[in-house]
Order: sequence, then C-alpha cells, then structure tokens
Amino acid sequence: MRKENLLTGDRPTGKLHIGHYIGSLKNRVQLQDQYNNFIMIADQQALTDNARNPEKIKKNLTEVALDYLSVGIDPSKVNIFVQSQIPELNELTMHYLNIVTVSRLKRNLTVKNEIKEKNFSESLPTGFLIYPVSQAADITAFKANVVPVGEDQIPMIEQTNEIVRSFNSIYKRDVLIETNALLPEKGLGRLPGIDGKAKMSKSLNNAIYLSDSPDTIQRKVMSMYTDPNHIRVEDPGNVENNTVFTYLEAFCLDKVKLKEMKEHYRRGGLGDVKVKKYLNDVLQAELETIRNKRNYYEKNLDYVFEVLKKGSLNARSVATETLFGVREAIGINYFN
Amino acid sequence: MRKENLLTGDRPTGKLHIGHYIGSLKNRVQLQDQYNNFIMIADQQALTDNARNPEKIKKNLTEVALDYLSVGIDPSKVNIFVQSQIPELNELTMHYLNIVTVSRLKRNLTVKNEIKEKNFSESLPTGFLIYPVSQAADITAFKANVVPVGEDQIPMIEQTNEIVRSFNSIYKRDVLIETNALLPEKGLGRLPGIDGKAKMSKSLNNAIYLSDSPDTIQRKVMSMYTDPNHIRVEDPGNVENNTVFTYLEAFCLDKVKLKEMKEHYRRGGLGDVKVKKYLNDVLQAELETIRNKRNYYEKNLDYVFEVLKKGSLNARSVATETLFGVREAIGINYFN
Repeated sequence: MRKENLLTGDRPTGKLHIGHYIGSLKNRVQLQDQYNNFIMIADQQALTDNARNPEKIKKNLTEVALDYLSVGIDPSKVNIFVQSQIPELNELTMHYLNIVTVSRLKRNLTVKNEIKEKNFSESLPTGFLIYPVSQAADITAFKANVVPVGEDQIPMIEQTNEIVRSFNSIYKRDVLIETNALLPEKGLGRLPGIDGKAKMSKSLNNAIYLSDSPDTIQRKVMSMYTDPNHIRVEDPGNVENNTVFTYLEAFCLDKVKLKEMKEHYRRGGLGDVKVKKYLNDVLQAELETIRNKRNYYEKNLDYVFEVLKKGSLNARSVATETLFGVREAIGINYFN
Repeated sequence: MRKENLLTGDRPTGKLHIGHYIGSLKNRVQLQDQYNNFIMIADQQALTDNARNPEKIKKNLTEVALDYLSVGIDPSKVNIFVQSQIPELNELTMHYLNIVTVSRLKRNLTVKNEIKEKNFSESLPTGFLIYPVSQAADITAFKANVVPVGEDQIPMIEQTNEIVRSFNSIYKRDVLIETNALLPEKGLGRLPGIDGKAKMSKSLNNAIYLSDSPDTIQRKVMSMYTDPNHIRVEDPGNVENNTVFTYLEAFCLDKVKLKEMKEHYRRGGLGDVKVKKYLNDVLQAELETIRNKRNYYEKNLDYVFEVLKKGSLNARSVATETLFGVREAIGINYFN
C-alpha cells in the first residue's frame, strides 16, 4: 500500500530547543518510516515578518537543518527541503488568493492571535495576513494527507480544507485533496520554559537549545523554576507545575525511579538541588548524542546543503505536478 | 542607444472596442518602433475577480490577441505575451507583499474606487485587494521605464515606485528600477459610449467593437446620442458633448470638412442623420481594414498562438533575470 504523505516543518527564525524536540522532532523521527515525509524549512514564510532581516533567516536555515540531522531525521527516508526553492508554491498561493475573501482571512483565529501577539497594528505586512493561504499552498502542493499541528493551529487546517473544497467545486475537478490534523497525544503538551512559563522561546530567554554546551545546560537546569513553597529540604513539595519534574516526565526513561523521586519530594526530604542534578544527568546524556552529531555535520556543511538541495528537488517535482493539475483545472495551460 | 522598455496590456474580459482603439491601441502601434515593447494579456489579473468564470477569460484571451494583431501591433517588433505564462511574476508578488502593509494597500485610490464600483463588500477576493502589488511585479519584472496609463491609474504607478524604493533600500542594492507614467495627450481622453455616457463598456452595452459587422456598426451609429435639443434640421445644434462629433473628431482625417460640418450644424440646417451617415462611412472604412485582418487571423489561430508563445518566452527570459536579482538581494539563492 502506498504510504500517506505527511508535511511538517519550521520557520528558520532561531535554533531549535528541547521544546521543539519533545513537541515535534522526536515524533518526526518516529513517523519517518510510517509516512512519506516532507519536512520544510519555511524560509519564505519566515520572511513575511522578517523581510527587513533576511540575514537572520539565512543563518538559521543552516541551524535548523543541523538540528534536524542531529536529532536523527534521516534524509534517506525523508525529504528535507527549503520552501523558497519551490517557486510553484507562489503561484498556487496566488490562485488560491482569488477564491479566499479578505473577510474570511481576517476571521482566521490563529493569525488573529499572532497579529495581536506581534503587535503589528498599522504595520501588518500583507504577506503575513495572507500566510494561511500560502500554508494551504504548501499543504496541498505536497498532497499532504496528514499535518502534525498543535490545537492552536486547527484553524489553519480548516482554512486549507475550505480552499480545497472551494477550488475543486469551482473548477469541477478533484485536483486537490483535503488534509487531516495530527494532534499531539493527550498530556504530551508543550514543554514549559525553564522559568516555568508556558512557552519556551528565544525572546523569553528561557529555552535550552539542542546545541547548548554541557556547561550552559547545567547552568540553565540549576536555575530552573520548581515549587516556590518548597523552601527547606524537609518541606513537602509539589511535583505538579514543577518544571523540573515536567522535564523529567518528558526525558527520564527510568519511570520507576521517577515515581519514587516524586513520592519522596511530595512527602518532604528531597532537595531541589538533588532533583536538578538528576535532571541534568538525564538531559546531558540525551543531548550529548545530539550535540556530537551536530558537531559532525557542522564540519560537513557541504553535505548538509546537498541534503537540502536533493530534498528540494524531490519536493519540487511533487509541487510541479500539483500546479500542473491546478493550471489544467483553471484552463491556463494554453500552450500544452 | 538602447531603447527604453514599455509595458502595457489588457485584461481579457471582453473583445476590444473602438474606445480601446482610440485610447490606447493606436498609440501602441505608433510607439512600437520607439520603445522595446511588452504587451501583456493579463489573464491572471482578470482571474482575481473572475475566478469562478475562467472560461470567459480563456475565450477572451484569443479575442484580445486577434484585436491586437488586427489593429497592426506587429509581433516582429513587440512581445505580445500572456501573464499566466510568466510564473516568475507570482514569486515577485509574494516577495513584495512582505514589504507592503495592509493599511497601505487599502489606501490605494484606484483599487478603493474599483472595490466600490464592483460592489464587493464582504466578498472582496484577496487576490483583488493585492492586485496593485501584482501589477508592481509586472512593471518591475520587465524593467519597464514607461507605462502608458490614464490619470485614474497614477496611484498604481506611485505604489509601484514605492515598492521599488523600499525594496532597493531594504536589500541595499539597485535591483529594481522606478517607472514613469506615460499620460495621454491633453484632449485625447476617453471615447464616450454611443449613448453619450462617459465610459464605453460591455456591461453598459454601449460599445462599438473592432470585430463588429458592417450592419452592426451602422445600426449602432444610427442610434447614437447627439444634441437632445437639436429637434428639427433647421435648429441650431451643439457639437460639444455630441457623441457623433466626438467620434468624428477621433476618426475623421479630413479636418477641413469636419470643421465645415461643425459650423453648419451649429448654425442649423444640418440633420443628425446626415452627420451619422458620414460618421458611418468614416468608421466603416477604418474598421473594414481591421476586420479583414481579423478574419484572416481567425482562420490562422495556430499562428496567433505561436505569436503568444514566442512573446511569452521572450518576456519570461527578462522576468527570470529580474527575479534572479531579487532572490540574490534577499539572499535565498542558496544553491547557486
């Protein structure tokens, strides 16, 4: 049986951190045999609100590619590609823009919230307003049956499927296929920042990066947010909303030991420093493998770019096919 | 000295009429030696508000090409090309959209008026809102030094030049060139409809088409709007705002005879029927040549499509060069 297509990716606006690792990268590695994977470095989407800072995007394109390879995404199984190398996506976007009204775009909840967060007001770039349509172009171009997303991105999937239905109905052909959101398992939500805030992010300066040095990791772990009421070692402590335990939950494989530690911490007598030291050991072990691979690929950037180039060529051939169908349906392949 | 580039064109939403002929086609023929001409059939722009009716655009693509060739636009001197065959325009548009704010787009007067005229309100297609940016892509792609436009389109030229300045300044290279509006000569304004209304248009059903049959032309001329107060032949008549005389002004080469007729009409004694018959003779003579050529090309549609194909290839090579420069400037030619 033919494998289903899966599209995922990241905007290259910074190095990837352990939040990305737990929230999606690990999962991608697990899914790489099950699906026909397209992993996109969305440089053009990143430019929609970074047009004045293209150097940042260019630099982080390499960082993200290194992060991908170092966590074990295998380019022999997966197409890792660069969005800007697939010019067909632009034309698809333009065709879809004709069948999406401005008022519909403004109702897209994901974008609405992001516009608020980014504080654009009068300076909202048009490219940013329309990026859900560009995302619909990405998803449909690669005929993605499945797109792994968080709950907050469901409106994007809905908008894509609206475009698919509307296009197929207007042009009376089943050219485009609807996609499905692949939501994270219950409980496996977002990893909080080391300060306990809901989101790990560069701007909040509360992230542990896949490329962090052992010293940096240790320093960050030792500064982590725990239970603010757990003052003396002998005090009973809370393991819920205690970032150190949330991280252990995500990284520690010795579930028996973790259970014991939790009970000990709850009844009192287990100090934060001890728990943090244990988390540090666990994290260092997992991140060392990743960092070593990263160092290797950093010394072989030509290879990394070869991977991106080849992945982009493969991805482009699929997008070209989709665009041909779209142009046929609209009726503008006059010279074929 | 290298000739300057000139870009012009039409949306293929209907056959061209004598309003187009007087307002721009005749002028294009006169300019075809002076400039390096790009004449674009803007099918993709037409789709921005005709997405649900692509057959109409496809049909009129051929009609407009026939109209061009029949009025004497010479494909050995001019690139007649089809917008949708230049995919680079889509990518240029997408890059420009990142440096144009939504609020700036909404201030574009030309589009503001068109949105009002077309009564879109909640159903405004996003593609239509952004078409000034797509037009900036057209103008810059072909490095047009000159764009012939009416007064009402000056805001489009301004928006293009804003994008040019903004792009060159952000990316610190003189990649794009500013353009200049080529305005019509004073007095040589728009030809009114046969009902005397300011605009000749398909929807008002008041146009004489370049492809109209002799009978149709005669019928339309005989029904034309003249001076409503010129009731009896002996009454003095008005030649201002008298459509028959406006048309004679535009078409009659015998200026001495026209001057005499005007004086006669003013002092009374010259009937409308007589003036209309004269206009009919003048029009029939000029349109017969055009119609004969049109009949010839209609029987040679393969040739017409060859012209479009070749023109599109030429135009595309220029657009490809521009896009390469734009991508270099942004820094996304990673694999070159």
